[in-house]
Amino acid sequence: MQKKILEYLRKEQEYVSGDQLSHKLGMTRQALWKHIQELRDSGYEIVAVPHLGYRLESAPDRLFAAEIISGLKTKFIGRKIYYYDTISSTMDVAVELGMKSAVDGALIVAEAQTKGRGRLGRIWFSPKYKGIYLSIILRPKILPNQASLLTLLAAVSVCEAVKDVCNLELQIKWPNDLLIKNKKIGGILTELNAEIDKVNFIVIGLGLNVNNDLKSLISQATSLKEENKEAVSRIKLLQEILLRTEDNYLLLQNQGQRIFLEKWRQYSVTLGKRVKVYCQKKHIEGDAVDIDSDGGLLVRRDTGVIEKVLSGDVVHCR
Amino acid sequence: MQKKILEYLRKEQEYVSGDQLSHKLGMTRQALWKHIQELRDSGYEIVAVPHLGYRLESAPDRLFAAEIISGLKTKFIGRKIYYYDTISSTMDVAVELGMKSAVDGALIVAEAQTKGRGRLGRIWFSPKYKGIYLSIILRPKILPNQASLLTLLAAVSVCEAVKDVCNLELQIKWPNDLLIKNKKIGGILTELNAEIDKVNFIVIGLGLNVNNDLKSLISQATSLKEENKEAVSRIKLLQEILLRTEDNYLLLQNQGQRIFLEKWRQYSVTLGKRVKVYCQKKHIEGDAVDIDSDGGLLVRRDTGVIEKVLSGDVVHCR
Repeated sequence: MQKKILEYLRKEQEYVSGDQLSHKLGMTRQALWKHIQELRDSGYEIVAVPHLGYRLESAPDRLFAAEIISGLKTKFIGRKIYYYDTISSTMDVAVELGMKSAVDGALIVAEAQTKGRGRLGRIWFSPKYKGIYLSIILRPKILPNQASLLTLLAAVSVCEAVKDVCNLELQIKWPNDLLIKNKKIGGILTELNAEIDKVNFIVIGLGLNVNNDLKSLISQATSLKEENKEAVSRIKLLQEILLRTEDNYLLLQNQGQRIFLEKWRQYSVTLGKRVKVYCQKKHIEGDAVDIDSDGGLLVRRDTGVIEKVLSGDVVHCR
Repeated sequence: MQKKILEYLRKEQEYVSGDQLSHKLGMTRQALWKHIQELRDSGYEIVAVPHLGYRLESAPDRLFAAEIISGLKTKFIGRKIYYYDTISSTMDVAVELGMKSAVDGALIVAEAQTKGRGRLGRIWFSPKYKGIYLSIILRPKILPNQASLLTLLAAVSVCEAVKDVCNLELQIKWPNDLLIKNKKIGGILTELNAEIDKVNFIVIGLGLNVNNDLKSLISQATSLKEENKEAVSRIKLLQEILLRTEDNYLLLQNQGQRIFLEKWRQYSVTLGKRVKVYCQKKHIEGDAVDIDSDGGLLVRRDTGVIEKVLSGDVVHCR
């Protein structure tokens, strides 16, 4: 019901009389008043003027489902939203929901995570209301060994969205780091549940520093606000991330990986660099020459032999 | 407590006086009597003779945890057991338990499954007390693309156990079918939960027709009892399957896949055959020449080109 009140106030943009509003929504004035109070408690600024009625002045800086849906241009990604104020990790909840047959494109979003995590169990610091912490459940018809492509896809989508909304150029450090001027600003995490020859579902996770202040960031990290010197609308950015992710996902499914890998190359900060890749117990050193069709990194050793690395930690050498 | 009573009766093998037993286990004669009754209700034949005491005559044909543990020679596989009378599918429960950090080697076993399943969502018919329906949770340090090897490993282990306990030769049809004289007798299902570069856990599932009668089998299927013309101890066979699985698993981890793939080749009914492999939308026809180090099937087309197939349905041509 509160969602409907917001929709109505948004559509009108002007004062709406309490009589009109309660009539339209089929409730008493008292019930309406109660809902308005609850919306205000959630942070919505709603002005009430005698004889004029109610008007929505501003929405709070929250990733409420109603806010995300309002103006969202996607077809299926983010059409079903699970919103949490504070959660252990959006990934954990997403995997649980995936097991319980949550729909393709379902979005799990939280204002804060107590156990936000990155690759290989590393921690992702997720302070409240500062960043975007989300997971998307996808059910693509691909083989398990093609799942790496979705990590790259998510990274490209975030770069495009940030460029569009904040006019900032992010870069991708293979396989899953998002950088800006060599400082870490975000990361992608991909988990899958699969049979040997069939993906049941994949969860793409994103942690992105948006409105964090410098003092709340660990060293070598930054946020969009720090770089742009102004706060960013998390809702607007999140909507754009969902849209870009969907566009790239459909591009990948309909036209194959070629066009999409070309996009990835443009944002890559790894290609062309001298790298050391630490992978399980060994490491490989050489020049990062290209990305393979399955998302693996191609490294040319000094012997001239090109090796494909499917996973690992990359250090860019000077 | 019932587990302890059984252990004691098993160890003694002779009549044990009620006084002695209740004293040893620190309970009253009344409490002991109640436990004995409950054991009888579960199908244990326990004789009580005045002035002599209790004696265990026989255990029921059930896969109770206490029965599996008694005499089990493994180090970690099957040391933690989740037993169910009837369950939707041991796979579903195993994946849930895997998410909740169940231990490496945990065994989920059921007397019947209402939604037993095979590869790609196919049904596995699982009538009560007739077969072995189990899932094992493993937490190996491997990459997701090596998971296929565990399907092969489980298949080999079942073949070895059946040979040992029933003196019957099973054959493996790539990737996951167990046959006897070209009739289907069992199947392996492997599911994984993973990051791109780290397996969180793998679940190996087995459905095996053991004491099914011909009339309860679908056509082209058989059971161990049908082939051997006598009932098989499901407990004994299950214990042997767990032991062989653990042995092969340690072999794979310590010595690599070579020795273990050699075992697989011996049981394979696919190698050397003319095959059609249906894989997603296409199919490949040729001669199945070998298995690759990651478990893929190598098929030589008539052009002479050898292709590796990682998944698919195989038809053996005449």
